[in-house]
Amino acid sequence: MSLPSIESIDAASATLAQRLAGIREFMARESLDAFIIPCADQFLGEYLGPDVQRLRWLTGFTGEAAIAVVQPERAAIFVDGRFTVQVRQQVPASLFEYHHLIEEPHLNWLNNTLQPGDRIGFDATLHTYNWYQDAIAAFREKDIQLVELAENPIDRLWNDRPAASDAPGILLDEKYTGRSSEDKRQVLSEMLQKKGLDALVITQPDAVNWLFNIRGGDVPCLPVVLSYAIVYQDGNADLFAPTGKLDDHFYPHAGDGVRLMDIATIEHSLKQLGEDGADVQLDYENSNAWIPLTLLHFGAQVIHGDDPCMVMKAIKNRIEIEGMRQAHLYAGIATTKFLAWLDREVAAGTPTLDEGVLADKIEALLEEQPGYNGCSFETISAVGPNAAMCHYNHTLTTPRTLGQDGLYLIDSGGQFPEGTTDMTRTIKVGDVTDEMCTRYTQVLQGHIRLAATRFPKGTRGIQLDTIARQPLWQAGCDYDHGTGHGVGHFLGVHETPLRMSPQEADSRLEAGMMITIEPGYYKEDAYGLRVENLYVVKPSTIASDVPMLEMESLTLAPIDCRLIKQELLSAEEFQWLDEYHQQVQKLIGPYLDAEEKEWLTLVTRPLAEQQ
Amino acid sequence: MSLPSIESIDAASATLAQRLAGIREFMARESLDAFIIPCADQFLGEYLGPDVQRLRWLTGFTGEAAIAVVQPERAAIFVDGRFTVQVRQQVPASLFEYHHLIEEPHLNWLNNTLQPGDRIGFDATLHTYNWYQDAIAAFREKDIQLVELAENPIDRLWNDRPAASDAPGILLDEKYTGRSSEDKRQVLSEMLQKKGLDALVITQPDAVNWLFNIRGGDVPCLPVVLSYAIVYQDGNADLFAPTGKLDDHFYPHAGDGVRLMDIATIEHSLKQLGEDGADVQLDYENSNAWIPLTLLHFGAQVIHGDDPCMVMKAIKNRIEIEGMRQAHLYAGIATTKFLAWLDREVAAGTPTLDEGVLADKIEALLEEQPGYNGCSFETISAVGPNAAMCHYNHTLTTPRTLGQDGLYLIDSGGQFPEGTTDMTRTIKVGDVTDEMCTRYTQVLQGHIRLAATRFPKGTRGIQLDTIARQPLWQAGCDYDHGTGHGVGHFLGVHETPLRMSPQEADSRLEAGMMITIEPGYYKEDAYGLRVENLYVVKPSTIASDVPMLEMESLTLAPIDCRLIKQELLSAEEFQWLDEYHQQVQKLIGPYLDAEEKEWLTLVTRPLAEQQ
Repeated sequence: MSLPSIESIDAASATLAQRLAGIREFMARESLDAFIIPCADQFLGEYLGPDVQRLRWLTGFTGEAAIAVVQPERAAIFVDGRFTVQVRQQVPASLFEYHHLIEEPHLNWLNNTLQPGDRIGFDATLHTYNWYQDAIAAFREKDIQLVELAENPIDRLWNDRPAASDAPGILLDEKYTGRSSEDKRQVLSEMLQKKGLDALVITQPDAVNWLFNIRGGDVPCLPVVLSYAIVYQDGNADLFAPTGKLDDHFYPHAGDGVRLMDIATIEHSLKQLGEDGADVQLDYENSNAWIPLTLLHFGAQVIHGDDPCMVMKAIKNRIEIEGMRQAHLYAGIATTKFLAWLDREVAAGTPTLDEGVLADKIEALLEEQPGYNGCSFETISAVGPNAAMCHYNHTLTTPRTLGQDGLYLIDSGGQFPEGTTDMTRTIKVGDVTDEMCTRYTQVLQGHIRLAATRFPKGTRGIQLDTIARQPLWQAGCDYDHGTGHGVGHFLGVHETPLRMSPQEADSRLEAGMMITIEPGYYKEDAYGLRVENLYVVKPSTIASDVPMLEMESLTLAPIDCRLIKQELLSAEEFQWLDEYHQQVQKLIGPYLDAEEKEWLTLVTRPLAEQQ
Repeated sequence: MSLPSIESIDAASATLAQRLAGIREFMARESLDAFIIPCADQFLGEYLGPDVQRLRWLTGFTGEAAIAVVQPERAAIFVDGRFTVQVRQQVPASLFEYHHLIEEPHLNWLNNTLQPGDRIGFDATLHTYNWYQDAIAAFREKDIQLVELAENPIDRLWNDRPAASDAPGILLDEKYTGRSSEDKRQVLSEMLQKKGLDALVITQPDAVNWLFNIRGGDVPCLPVVLSYAIVYQDGNADLFAPTGKLDDHFYPHAGDGVRLMDIATIEHSLKQLGEDGADVQLDYENSNAWIPLTLLHFGAQVIHGDDPCMVMKAIKNRIEIEGMRQAHLYAGIATTKFLAWLDREVAAGTPTLDEGVLADKIEALLEEQPGYNGCSFETISAVGPNAAMCHYNHTLTTPRTLGQDGLYLIDSGGQFPEGTTDMTRTIKVGDVTDEMCTRYTQVLQGHIRLAATRFPKGTRGIQLDTIARQPLWQAGCDYDHGTGHGVGHFLGVHETPLRMSPQEADSRLEAGMMITIEPGYYKEDAYGLRVENLYVVKPSTIASDVPMLEMESLTLAPIDCRLIKQELLSAEEFQWLDEYHQQVQKLIGPYLDAEEKEWLTLVTRPLAEQQ
């Protein structure tokens, strides 16, 4: 899905003022002194369908990571540093004050602006349980009350609300998943038995979809049926999904002991667990607050534990790894065709190529590949200085045209039944400076060193992150994002818990995990570069004292050698790049036409011959 | 201090049986079903004076990290993997069962062997408050009681107990400390005001000694007066030290608002804080349990917080850094003389050089340096396979003699009023294998890469640790210890909180901190190698996008180039080593005699000329 362009503030203002008035009427009726609305649905995921974009309905703001607060006489929107410009363009200052999400937390602001005894209405399905506990603690001293609303007032006021997605569920065959749902549930059942717990409530749709070997199309980019699950100690399990997503074919697919229930009935099941006095495991950090509050209300014992599905699905099985390899072959063919086409167009000096045209082109090429199921995230297509913005989205502004800049950055990924892809290439599309080439070489060097490293079993992402940064560090530079993230199998392109980042010390790499390597460099108002491949972690074959792991690239597309300063690379780095390009040539070449093939042969010949 | 050699088990056995009987009599009188004795004094530090080695008195065991438990009919000693052989040699199996400290925790063992209602006696001054809370939690279900003893029964039974150290306290001049005690207390006072707390109780002697600019000689290796302190919100402070350690000169030295009190009176001060209902900050993790229990008993509010002195003293000021530089010049002179002497002796084929003689020699050379105040840790002097044991101590066994092995490892450090030193060199003393040289080169390469790296302000130790390991990782190898630790200024050689280690994700490097770099490689029963220098962290002078830090070596002594496989090193690594050796030559050369100087010139000439 691409976001619509910004509505005219003047026209929107009147509508938004009406909506705000509606909320304030509701507040008056319910004796509320504040109402909080975050940018989230009940699944707290990265992507929201249009039917649950309540904060956008109320404020006009289209960015992620925002919270709005309405009081009888004032209202405020809290956004982080990425969105300070955007919020001023989209949200009328006459209606909402602007605040910084991190530096001026909304809980503090509420504490400062409310009186003792005041009541704050909130929708428990849209906040984490951790948020709820923080809020309780923050408001305790001043005796401010949190009032859990039975219904969200926006849902009542939203007349032209889009319908929820009617995309059907998909039963994903074991030839793609490599493991039966029954088998996965068996492991969870054993875990519950070992811990002496009665049930596990699973609240993250990607975990639920993985567990039952289903997929869907309820939100952009993430191919899932939005759903919950409860797994019981005996291995029986209930899937709570919107009625109509799946039919009776689901039962033989999922195996014995499974019930398909309408999503609304989960309240009854949670109540049942409570009345049975069950001990229930739940991941507090990723569950909305309504689920544990309901369990607790009805008498269940709720025990926090990371959702065990998250690590289980992070470790891909042999079939999934082969599938990911296949998906990356598809994406590699599309990307290589795109890069060959782009080079020809640039040489021809076609001036009409803007960021939107370029993004459409790569998406069209991906679409030609068998089984293509849409983007795995919104394509980042950034010309020149726009690439310096990590979260750049050309659909929110006037797309920049090729011709005046040296560099173009394309970060794209696709969903296929075989797997999920994610790749970034930075391309020479004009005159470049010496500095650009130096930074590009350092970024590539960091990428190669990390891709080529061996490391002991049990090594954490934060330990490996350093390796990709070191060439930039030596030059006094750095990049302000993680070096890599986990990727799902025909699921989320940003899959937790695996991360390689200076901020995240807990996640450890294990054989079978998928991880991107994507160092970059960003110079504000000038240029941005990034080179990203996806790797599978696997045991190293080297004779070793301790069990060692290494990484193998699944991504297959040429890396632009015209930007490399060869004198900065070591012999090992030359060798890695040449071997990588040989692999690309061998595996992608057969799928190209004659002209593309000739181009690929040229750009993948040994680096030493390229200058 | 070197530990005495092991007593004959037969002779000791009878004595230990008597001691055990004495404890059991006490237990019967007090209706105790168990008595716990850890290897610790009330300060819970790394080094113990002979007068507080109660576990050793009771069991005969001389290692660190042990806990003994006595019951009416049985007794047990718990030690970790490093000491499984030693415990069997020192502790009679007829009196004590042996258990593994980690795999069979003593709390579990007590839980399994005791009955509901049983009473366990413990000395709260010898356990952390965290231990106390764990124990309470572990015994709650079975209703086992923890009984805090008013007096430790060992102290009553120990007839020939050595006197506590009578080493006088030292007033360390501001020409060494670079900052007045008043100034340091001012910062703590401001912190207490900001947090709205009444007092800070400081329980770690190195923090107390740093705060008052005093030093002492109460324990081996750590030059402190064993003492506590309380700092009040107004900046006034009480120092609790054994009477006689300091005289009235302390008052002008420490500045206004300070009281010198006998250490026994801290109980009265804690009581006073309690009766005043004070809010008191204390570092639970590093305080013995008696202090918070006493505070809580008398009504104080105890708030956990890391001792703020720890980070303050980790960041050395300009004077301290200059002092550390001077101390490392002293240690560098002694070590260089030692290495020159060793080379001559090896060439002469002197067979009588054993690990003890070699350790004595370097300690004697350190002692020749001005102001030498003893070792900063027990010298590790390890020939051949003994170096494969990281915690090897030649005084606990028959020292091995030079002649049959290729490698010798010496890890030594000294205390000087100017600072504390720590350095390791691995030396070729015979025929070496190709593998030894490969590993040595990889270890050295890791050392150099880390020493030469730049990194952004705020980088954590765990991020940098990787850089030193990578050359070994590539070869399928690793080492099972951290890459570096903080070092005190004329204080502890292992100074918290700074660490570079895969296990420790929290500590961050800041300008002014001292950190060792000490990668190694250990092959059991074969050989061990390590190259260790101490570095000061400082701002990088490179033009950079973000504030960058780098490291400068304070350690000055040649690194053995005879073990280097030059073809494995990069041009940058050659250059680092050559520049380092030029520095050693320039700064140490002037302090050597003619023969030593000639040797130094030879071993520090450019690496390319050395093969």
